[in-house]
Amino acid sequence: MTSWLQIPKNSPFSLANIPFGIISTQSASRVPAIAIGDYALDLSTFATSGGFSPLPEIQKNLAVFNQTTLNDFAELGRPVHRQVREYLQNVFSADTKYPEVLKDNATLQKEALLPRSEVTNHVPMQIGDYTDFYAGKNHAYNVGVLFRGPENALQPNYTHLPVAYHGRASSVVPSGTPLHRPTGQILANPAANPKVPVFSPCKKLDIELELAAFISKPNELGKPVSIDEAEDHIFGLVLMNDWSARDIQAWEYVPLGPFNAKNFGTTITPWIVLIDALEPFRATGIEPGNRESLLPYLRQKRPEITYEIPLEVEITNKGGQPTVISHSNARNLLYSFPQMVAHHTITGCNLRSGDLLGSGTISGTEPKTQGSLLEQTNGKTPLILADGSERLFLEDGDTIILRGTAGTEGNYVGFGDCVGTILPPVSF
Amino acid sequence: MTSWLQIPKNSPFSLANIPFGIISTQSASRVPAIAIGDYALDLSTFATSGGFSPLPEIQKNLAVFNQTTLNDFAELGRPVHRQVREYLQNVFSADTKYPEVLKDNATLQKEALLPRSEVTNHVPMQIGDYTDFYAGKNHAYNVGVLFRGPENALQPNYTHLPVAYHGRASSVVPSGTPLHRPTGQILANPAANPKVPVFSPCKKLDIELELAAFISKPNELGKPVSIDEAEDHIFGLVLMNDWSARDIQAWEYVPLGPFNAKNFGTTITPWIVLIDALEPFRATGIEPGNRESLLPYLRQKRPEITYEIPLEVEITNKGGQPTVISHSNARNLLYSFPQMVAHHTITGCNLRSGDLLGSGTISGTEPKTQGSLLEQTNGKTPLILADGSERLFLEDGDTIILRGTAGTEGNYVGFGDCVGTILPPVSF
Repeated sequence: MTSWLQIPKNSPFSLANIPFGIISTQSASRVPAIAIGDYALDLSTFATSGGFSPLPEIQKNLAVFNQTTLNDFAELGRPVHRQVREYLQNVFSADTKYPEVLKDNATLQKEALLPRSEVTNHVPMQIGDYTDFYAGKNHAYNVGVLFRGPENALQPNYTHLPVAYHGRASSVVPSGTPLHRPTGQILANPAANPKVPVFSPCKKLDIELELAAFISKPNELGKPVSIDEAEDHIFGLVLMNDWSARDIQAWEYVPLGPFNAKNFGTTITPWIVLIDALEPFRATGIEPGNRESLLPYLRQKRPEITYEIPLEVEITNKGGQPTVISHSNARNLLYSFPQMVAHHTITGCNLRSGDLLGSGTISGTEPKTQGSLLEQTNGKTPLILADGSERLFLEDGDTIILRGTAGTEGNYVGFGDCVGTILPPVSF
Repeated sequence: MTSWLQIPKNSPFSLANIPFGIISTQSASRVPAIAIGDYALDLSTFATSGGFSPLPEIQKNLAVFNQTTLNDFAELGRPVHRQVREYLQNVFSADTKYPEVLKDNATLQKEALLPRSEVTNHVPMQIGDYTDFYAGKNHAYNVGVLFRGPENALQPNYTHLPVAYHGRASSVVPSGTPLHRPTGQILANPAANPKVPVFSPCKKLDIELELAAFISKPNELGKPVSIDEAEDHIFGLVLMNDWSARDIQAWEYVPLGPFNAKNFGTTITPWIVLIDALEPFRATGIEPGNRESLLPYLRQKRPEITYEIPLEVEITNKGGQPTVISHSNARNLLYSFPQMVAHHTITGCNLRSGDLLGSGTISGTEPKTQGSLLEQTNGKTPLILADGSERLFLEDGDTIILRGTAGTEGNYVGFGDCVGTILPPVSF
């Protein structure tokens, strides 16, 4: 596929992608858009200017493009998302069937096709609930070894269900939002005094490299989603950094799980890559899988439960020097997002359009393939950055960039950068 | 205080209360209202008919009474809530200063003062996030004894911070909503086979007697709420039943806490009792308290961290015969809601108007004072109901009613009944 629009060959937003987001511009606040190359197409302006007139079915639902979130568009369901995406791919194709819509329409190009550098991205959906899973088996194992030793690293339930906990929706922020180092209760010296905490800025601030899925079609309370229908409830994926305060977590998490260690912020990429855009990259997950041991409600027909998406983690220090510290891949998952949906709803729990499901940290098995610093350093063996400085955990001023891009040059289907900078702690 | 309106002496909604909710009527869908005796006052109709004209400051914000949730009203802040409540108390007083507003206004009475039996209640706020704390020390101890024995019943962190986990907001339902018994993974015989689950309806379905606070004033991400300001971020309280599937919980909860065991439904009373209405009932909590050992960010000035509110749990069987199985009191808390707000935000986590904070199960120390069946029966010693039947856990068709009422006859400040009936499991 080639476009009449100049799209850089290394852009994650090639014609093969067409991800959806919410932007504000100098003239418009919070409108739906797609990303294409270095541009964003304002779908509100595009729609009101007749951009969708060749699609009679979409014409009936144009109000979804006049919203401040993508929830209403997502609720229209996967066949509609597919139709809109394929139509927009055609509109931007060099040999488009609809040249009058945009290719030969300089006025609309000027009004609706905006340099991405001039727009602001927002969290693209109203997130009703955010759930974080733990489907990266290597991560679960690596962390389990640190806490319980290799023999008991994985709990007995791990291979039978996708473990999860409810996360904090209010503090999910778009890429680029800086976050203060959190303050709270930590043990200053756990070995010497394991029972009396001190009040302190977090000293073990970490990252977690994750994918996350936005829900499109809701299900009613009391109506579980079957594994065969679950994929049609997923709108698309983003990259996610589940920032984690390991010392706060270690003290607080018994017996009910992580809370303040995670609730100060979770960063996502703002462009949602549709589930259909990722279909060409379907791939098997961690082998051997657990399909045979799963209860029927979790047995997915296709063995390709995940995607071939290379992932990387970069730390840029205060001075701006970057170091890529980890290379992983979305194949390092034991459970699929449809399995997460089926498990989440098996009790009758209702998912709503805009709910966010995190995958859990995606780590490989080899050195420099882990998705958290805890796994890479164990708080003991520092990473050496390009500037020669050492890191056990994050320092103030560090910027973390997560990247994930499927496909090949010229046809990349990527998420763009997931960026967050650590500010000093708030003063008390 | 006496009213010109006939209010039954045993009503939880005396003139001393004035709780706020959202109702729908035959003619109006989802409008703000207050409960008074056997009536609900539709505040949308009341406001548009000039009901608030004696309050110039409220007149500027009348749009808050034309919303489908109480979030906008709550965001106006505690001084406004107080002013509106005291004004409405005056409007309903026998010696009201404003007889023309409602007492002598038969037309407005007919339009806006509706028998509560003819209105439908809804979840009164849009809940952004729901957090469940674990501040009932006796419950934490009782459950800890069952799982870890008396010496390690409470974790070392328990007396230093209010333990909490993120809950599921989507499935919070108003009193009266029936819920299906959840299905999921349980261990059929944990002693014989602790590692392979079966797919089954929950066999250990339980309740949790809790209070819960709705947040009024939000705080920005990165701006913790100090303990001295925290109470002004609380709109009011409701009763809550945190239904719990103990067998699903036992299998799933390591290492990240409860998930499917809780996400199928949480029932709340629909009338929010303002924090100011509870002020006369301020009382100390569990003694000895932990004030001296707390870090300064959690030290509350007043020793009265909770309220004198008698609570009870009733089971009504399928045939309609009720048995009160437990008497507890809101004094059985170790942490206050302001302490929960201060702890929740200490990392910089943002709370939004409408967020819901559960107290955790409120249990006493004596037999028949516990807020869950697990504590009363340990799954072994059955309760005997009034009809002679036995309960270790809930049966299909059982109705649970939680009640909580402060004050004395004629001046009760109560929550009304928190009712939920268990339906049979969904078929698979």
